[in-house]
Amino acid sequence: MTRFEFDITAKDDAARTGVIKMARGEIRTPAFMPVGTAATVKAMYPGHVRETGADIVLANTYHLMLRPGAERIAKLGGLHRFMNWNWPILTDSGGYQVMSLSKMRKISEEGVEFQSHIDGETIMLTPERAMEVQALLGADIVMAFDECTPYPATHGEAKESMELSMRWAGRSRKAFDANKDHARAAAVFGITQGGVYEDLRIASAKALKAIGFDGYAIGGLAVGEGQDEMFRALDFTVPHLPGDAPRYLMGVGKPADLIGAVRRGIDMFDCVLPTRSGRMGEAFTREGELNLKNARFREDTGSLDEKCGCPACLDYSRAYIHHLVRAGEMLGSMLLTWHNLHFYQDLMRAMRKSISEGTFSDFEGL
Amino acid sequence: MTRFEFDITAKDDAARTGVIKMARGEIRTPAFMPVGTAATVKAMYPGHVRETGADIVLANTYHLMLRPGAERIAKLGGLHRFMNWNWPILTDSGGYQVMSLSKMRKISEEGVEFQSHIDGETIMLTPERAMEVQALLGADIVMAFDECTPYPATHGEAKESMELSMRWAGRSRKAFDANKDHARAAAVFGITQGGVYEDLRIASAKALKAIGFDGYAIGGLAVGEGQDEMFRALDFTVPHLPGDAPRYLMGVGKPADLIGAVRRGIDMFDCVLPTRSGRMGEAFTREGELNLKNARFREDTGSLDEKCGCPACLDYSRAYIHHLVRAGEMLGSMLLTWHNLHFYQDLMRAMRKSISEGTFSDFEGL
Repeated sequence: MTRFEFDITAKDDAARTGVIKMARGEIRTPAFMPVGTAATVKAMYPGHVRETGADIVLANTYHLMLRPGAERIAKLGGLHRFMNWNWPILTDSGGYQVMSLSKMRKISEEGVEFQSHIDGETIMLTPERAMEVQALLGADIVMAFDECTPYPATHGEAKESMELSMRWAGRSRKAFDANKDHARAAAVFGITQGGVYEDLRIASAKALKAIGFDGYAIGGLAVGEGQDEMFRALDFTVPHLPGDAPRYLMGVGKPADLIGAVRRGIDMFDCVLPTRSGRMGEAFTREGELNLKNARFREDTGSLDEKCGCPACLDYSRAYIHHLVRAGEMLGSMLLTWHNLHFYQDLMRAMRKSISEGTFSDFEGL
Repeated sequence: MTRFEFDITAKDDAARTGVIKMARGEIRTPAFMPVGTAATVKAMYPGHVRETGADIVLANTYHLMLRPGAERIAKLGGLHRFMNWNWPILTDSGGYQVMSLSKMRKISEEGVEFQSHIDGETIMLTPERAMEVQALLGADIVMAFDECTPYPATHGEAKESMELSMRWAGRSRKAFDANKDHARAAAVFGITQGGVYEDLRIASAKALKAIGFDGYAIGGLAVGEGQDEMFRALDFTVPHLPGDAPRYLMGVGKPADLIGAVRRGIDMFDCVLPTRSGRMGEAFTREGELNLKNARFREDTGSLDEKCGCPACLDYSRAYIHHLVRAGEMLGSMLLTWHNLHFYQDLMRAMRKSISEGTFSDFEGL
């Protein structure tokens, strides 16, 4: 059984394409991971998520530990069986959601004490508990527990936060390894922090490499700094990450963000944008983003994107989807989410092909 | 091309099974028609509605004339293409929704003037306009325009209302026939009214027969009178309807209502119950109705109904669906709606089989 193997099959400047091999399946890179926060990619049947070309989905430690509970999911046979997704799952560690969703946080060296956004219960999340939860879920790729540094942050604040995350990364790795049954089949990724400060990002990358991980994520970006700052941070961070391990840019992004990040050597992404936009009536298309609520679509017999092969584009008109969105019908969210996920996977397919063919410097998108 | 043909293949006491043949497909009877109010069976892909065994769906004249508009749907190629459903569609005439949804109704001999529940616009619906709208939609089975008599109503009120509906039925038939292009491929049903009064129901049936329709509906039941009263009304109404035409009990009902009505000679049903209940977290099963919100399901690894063959039952546990419902996830509504529609079609399949085999007197449900 292959636990975790990353084969880079082609490079084009800093961009690369390849495949991550794991027990539950292969992940073609650059990869986009649809977000299944609460053990469901919203408005999608898991089989359809697979059909779009997704090799892996993301699920959220924070949400699932609160509801229905990690121990409960373990008792029910693990997350894969629970949500009927039989391919790799990456779980984030909960660090980001503790910051963005919970109230009354108390951060200490030990971890974060917070109140559940669901029932107000007081909960302690530590690197050790985050690893335990992800093992209970049965995650294939586990993320180290970190503090997502807020933006903006002073150099001093970002340094203190990053250093705490690095100590937590060490504890995460140790706790991951201690659970041998799970570690035998799963992989663990570290997360660089350090805000938009070059010296801190380099120090963070160095600290993670010293610990040693299967993959290296870049956290704390796409939090309001803008695309230029984000690309600048990638420019000075990526060269300090190991070349033979996958690099994962967390929570990103728009199509142009993905292209720019792949150009800078990123291999993996996750983002709620295609799914959330779908539920808001928005479609990503080869002619740009469309808001299907717009009255200009009410008699448009064309498909969302005439070059797209997804069922929403093959079988339904913009006029119909406009009607569904206006009427608040669930099928509108279902079709737009399906299309958007298909569009994102089309983009990843096109990038992988372009890198393989050595033409990625000319790649401009779908 | 067969416009409309009803072949009864077996009878068992008053119950009968058969097939309605139309240009867009065959409708096996007794038939349950899922409700697609706004040109979508809520939370379902149309292909999946078909997979449950539905031969026909219902759509609503009232909703569609207000949004997106009948002329617009006609311009877009008709309702079938619009909603991607290529089999028969029955459209109700709008009479019921005018009563239940709109404000400021003014009923006259001519028709009903009302305010749209969407934008407050004043609209006039007459038998002629109801026929025009249904032709613009391209309905396969068109319903006569009627006044749905409120319950309770005095004998005098019910009589006056029924007699108005019968005059409207005559005008509906005439308007339907006048649109020859549409009438060539479509069928038109009359609707008996008369509340729970035997003499009025008999007079209504007689009036409709004198006009002559392809099928005969029973309207104005399941409006609060209770199952006993409803069955009593069927007992004295059905014998006065033609034996060789389909009989359609509108807006009914629970599984036990369907069984009792089939026993009394009803061939067609529509009801929002399986779809609406699904969105409320409720499942119809062989062990009764289950509320999936209930905490007793949180670690239940069983399927919704262990004898059901629908995807919700084959691939997901009650515990997972409980989680989805609790978390307010759309997939919960999607799976429960699919299951409930499958359950209803299983019930219809079982009744058709039982009637064919002459064992329907012993039929007790799934």
